[in-house]
Amino acid sequence: MAEKFISLRNLHFLLYEVFDVVALTKYPYFEDHGKETFDMVVDTAMRMGKEMLFPVFSEMDKKPPEFRDGKVFVHPLAAQIMKACGEGGWIGAQASYEHGGQQIPNMIMTAFRGIFGAANYSASVYPFLTTGAAGLIASFGSPELFETYVPKMFAGEWQGTMALTEPQAGSSLTDIATTAFPTSEGFYKIKGQKIFISCSEYESTENIIHLLLGRIEGAPPGVKGVSLFVVPKLRPDKKGGLAANDVTCIGIYHKLGYRGAPITQLVFGDNDDCRGWLVGEPNRGLSCMFQMMNEARIDVGMGAAAIASAAYHASLEYARQRPQGRPVQAKDPLTPQAPIIEHADVKRMLLFQRAVVEGALSLIFQCSLYVDLSMATGGEERERCDLLLDLLTPIAKSYPSEMGILSVNQGLQCLGGYGYCDEFPLEQYYRDVRIHPIHEGTTGIQGMDLLGRKVIMKNGKAFLLFLAELEKTIAAGKAVPECEQFAGSLDDAVEILKEITVSLSGMALKGEIELFLADATLYLEMFGIVTIAWQWLLQALKATEALGKAITEEDINFYRGKLHTCRYFFAYELPKIKGIAPRLRESADGLTVNMQPEWFE
Amino acid sequence: MAEKFISLRNLHFLLYEVFDVVALTKYPYFEDHGKETFDMVVDTAMRMGKEMLFPVFSEMDKKPPEFRDGKVFVHPLAAQIMKACGEGGWIGAQASYEHGGQQIPNMIMTAFRGIFGAANYSASVYPFLTTGAAGLIASFGSPELFETYVPKMFAGEWQGTMALTEPQAGSSLTDIATTAFPTSEGFYKIKGQKIFISCSEYESTENIIHLLLGRIEGAPPGVKGVSLFVVPKLRPDKKGGLAANDVTCIGIYHKLGYRGAPITQLVFGDNDDCRGWLVGEPNRGLSCMFQMMNEARIDVGMGAAAIASAAYHASLEYARQRPQGRPVQAKDPLTPQAPIIEHADVKRMLLFQRAVVEGALSLIFQCSLYVDLSMATGGEERERCDLLLDLLTPIAKSYPSEMGILSVNQGLQCLGGYGYCDEFPLEQYYRDVRIHPIHEGTTGIQGMDLLGRKVIMKNGKAFLLFLAELEKTIAAGKAVPECEQFAGSLDDAVEILKEITVSLSGMALKGEIELFLADATLYLEMFGIVTIAWQWLLQALKATEALGKAITEEDINFYRGKLHTCRYFFAYELPKIKGIAPRLRESADGLTVNMQPEWFE
Repeated sequence: MAEKFISLRNLHFLLYEVFDVVALTKYPYFEDHGKETFDMVVDTAMRMGKEMLFPVFSEMDKKPPEFRDGKVFVHPLAAQIMKACGEGGWIGAQASYEHGGQQIPNMIMTAFRGIFGAANYSASVYPFLTTGAAGLIASFGSPELFETYVPKMFAGEWQGTMALTEPQAGSSLTDIATTAFPTSEGFYKIKGQKIFISCSEYESTENIIHLLLGRIEGAPPGVKGVSLFVVPKLRPDKKGGLAANDVTCIGIYHKLGYRGAPITQLVFGDNDDCRGWLVGEPNRGLSCMFQMMNEARIDVGMGAAAIASAAYHASLEYARQRPQGRPVQAKDPLTPQAPIIEHADVKRMLLFQRAVVEGALSLIFQCSLYVDLSMATGGEERERCDLLLDLLTPIAKSYPSEMGILSVNQGLQCLGGYGYCDEFPLEQYYRDVRIHPIHEGTTGIQGMDLLGRKVIMKNGKAFLLFLAELEKTIAAGKAVPECEQFAGSLDDAVEILKEITVSLSGMALKGEIELFLADATLYLEMFGIVTIAWQWLLQALKATEALGKAITEEDINFYRGKLHTCRYFFAYELPKIKGIAPRLRESADGLTVNMQPEWFE
Repeated sequence: MAEKFISLRNLHFLLYEVFDVVALTKYPYFEDHGKETFDMVVDTAMRMGKEMLFPVFSEMDKKPPEFRDGKVFVHPLAAQIMKACGEGGWIGAQASYEHGGQQIPNMIMTAFRGIFGAANYSASVYPFLTTGAAGLIASFGSPELFETYVPKMFAGEWQGTMALTEPQAGSSLTDIATTAFPTSEGFYKIKGQKIFISCSEYESTENIIHLLLGRIEGAPPGVKGVSLFVVPKLRPDKKGGLAANDVTCIGIYHKLGYRGAPITQLVFGDNDDCRGWLVGEPNRGLSCMFQMMNEARIDVGMGAAAIASAAYHASLEYARQRPQGRPVQAKDPLTPQAPIIEHADVKRMLLFQRAVVEGALSLIFQCSLYVDLSMATGGEERERCDLLLDLLTPIAKSYPSEMGILSVNQGLQCLGGYGYCDEFPLEQYYRDVRIHPIHEGTTGIQGMDLLGRKVIMKNGKAFLLFLAELEKTIAAGKAVPECEQFAGSLDDAVEILKEITVSLSGMALKGEIELFLADATLYLEMFGIVTIAWQWLLQALKATEALGKAITEEDINFYRGKLHTCRYFFAYELPKIKGIAPRLRESADGLTVNMQPEWFE
């Protein structure tokens, strides 16, 4: 089995060279930290990944959660990792001191999560889902709720979840039907069903805390009547005891991949004894939940990039070791075979993977930087970072998710028949990574979010800020001979993106909303490619600068590889927008809108 | 579970309207047949598919072959289907009367195999692999070999296989090392190992006949020293008895999908008692094997299209039934939810699948027509058909295989979370279809075959014949107002294909073979898109004509749907070549060739 699942060298490059995480320490919010702390966090994650998560990556897949007598039994690693992350302070590390955290930058904790995700994605979900759930209580819950739940969750003793999806509603949060009946005792009685809830039931944790969307009895219909609740599996009493809270698991899902984490179906209040506590204002649950959801979306992007990273390294290792065939021009069958990494088509498949993985990672860190700057600054700078983050969240979720599938697919292909068999990990990566375009909002929903909301919000302010970011990078690129051509290509691509954005927005202005959004998924795809090209130019600028000063062979190879992968991206990936743009220019024809369901055969 | 796995209406459209299989009966070779026979064959396949194969599609996946004490145990359907296909005469139906067959056109038997593949791909492999293996013996074996093996294989009593791949050689047939030692008794003693051999060992068949590539002791190195042998698991004696032939199964592969068929690793002659019989001339084994291989490649394309068809119909059924969300402009959450088939993005995913599935099927029938015409005609027409078939084989193999993955991927996506779970068949289709870009020559190998061999062979004669076929269709399209725009777009696409073919060939002429072939996989992709656009134009021409005469609502809906899917292909798929062409125009820069293995990190 492959030994390497993520490149620490590349993480250092992104954190310290491209995005300069150490510069954050000049802000008071992060002033207690320095490079030593950051190195320590990243090294710890690498150590835990190597020693704890990666060794059971395949085993967790082969022994998935079992549902017996209403109980769910999972791999022992679930309890171990919650304990280790709780004790190490990793679940709450990013929270403020006030909330019991350590104010570690999001960039560093994103690296931490990425390392875990590459080592064993299923395992990584337990602690970091808890981070998000606890964060919601910390942000919007009462001090009492905070005291009751957050310390236990940060300590890894209690698992947190996000309970949104319902059988009849699916992605349509408008149709959430779980009902909260007010009582005079400070809690609500909860009644309803939730499906597809990750880590929502298993035996080896003391308690499970659901952050649940429901509707207070009599609330307005639609999303304006949705509220957020804390609903524990076991409700704590004042003496520290725990009593059953009428939350029943009625089944688990048997999944294609991502099998180390249980996904269950839950019934709340079947015996009329399920209590929930309101978090935030009544009927404002969705906007609270979106804090967690937006973080979760970037985490999904990271999860996908992380799995693609592990697949890339496994296929790279195989390609270096497997002899097969000879150079195209070698005619003599008696000469020894060459390792397949020497074949141009295999190099293409490896370059594609590296371009996707490192491009996606770069974008995710870019988003993390906006999170950190928003936290550390205020006023206009905070607004700028928040808007850019809002705009880029659907890209950071969907580009790694969609391209991660194709990337792992090419990794599998490098191994030929062995890629299809379970002696090698590629087939599992291929199954695991497929979850990402689905959970936390499908790709279709991300497209509508980007085009129908983010691009046009505040008269396009976020989009204009994005263009300004790109223009800054393009200007820097044009000043460096090695990067000039990339900058020129990106400039042209931005022109196409602008032209198409203007033409689509024109339909929105005319009120043709269905036509406007019909090709939103394609718009998302094109926007994603342009965004990743920007990230590759950013990386190439740093690599060019660093190559000039590099001394060790290792560094020289790293920067040359980085630059060559950037060349690959601009030569093979960026031109793909020319295959998408013609369709987006014709969106007004309503081709999909006009397709009649009865014409399908 | 979905009820429908393939559209019979569409098969009829392709067989009878687009490719007019009945017209073949004017040739003496097919003169005994007529539409009634063809209908009977197709209806039989549909009935067997529905009643026998489809019901255990999921069960065969959940109970894969088991390896115990050197024996392989498979699902009972394997024996049943071999028996039923043997008794029905389906294994040898396509063979000539002389060889004991029924001279059924390839087009009809391709439909048969496609129906089986859509119903249950794994199950379909047992009989049709036997067809190919028996066909090889019939074409190149001695009368004695023919008598000994072919009737038993056609009767479904004995399984046939293709034994090519070896551990140290993989795709590199040059490096085949299995050795055949001549004896004075008319047979060879075989010694070697083969891996990844489909259906090559299981208990519930009387015998297994391996068509094996090996090297006669002392033969020249490389492919020029490779010969073809029949190597049975049990060797028949003159009295009709069977004796062990020293073929040992040492393991089976645990695969991502395609689990109903066993893939094993075999050792030949471990006790020095494995006998093989030469088929055809010594050292000419590869050219014999390529008869079976080329058929197998088109069958792989059909298998991929068939699985994608089943996935399309399953997702279509789900999309019609699943209510979720409302039209984009509906603001009132109290209105009922709409079935997801009404959302433009879902229609896009369904249109994409239909465009891929029906485009791929059309190309496969086009190839089958060339097979039939080659059989029925002679002289220049036969040469034309053979050359076109040679040229299009890598496309017919790789377009359905690569696009089938993406098509099933979109089918899975239509079901959201349910697509990821095994209550629905999509996750299995997703796993099953992934084999196709790997077996019978990877996509990379198909690209090299297309560009490095087929396009340039005989001074580009096949390519010129292909262009003539396209020009004929384009001219027909330009004469029909409803198809004029498609014809114009295809015309432009052909210009791009020609331009790039000329520029790449220029490199070959200069002897820059590595540069010439470096982007062969992309060239294959572009060539495939153009080819499928041609097939869509052909279909649109027939649909336009038929729509004018259609009376029933069912027919009108079918032809309208056909035309709208063609519109989809030209609006969304064909433009993708504009995203590939820029790279192919720059191939001379040798971007992948110049990437150094040590730059990968």
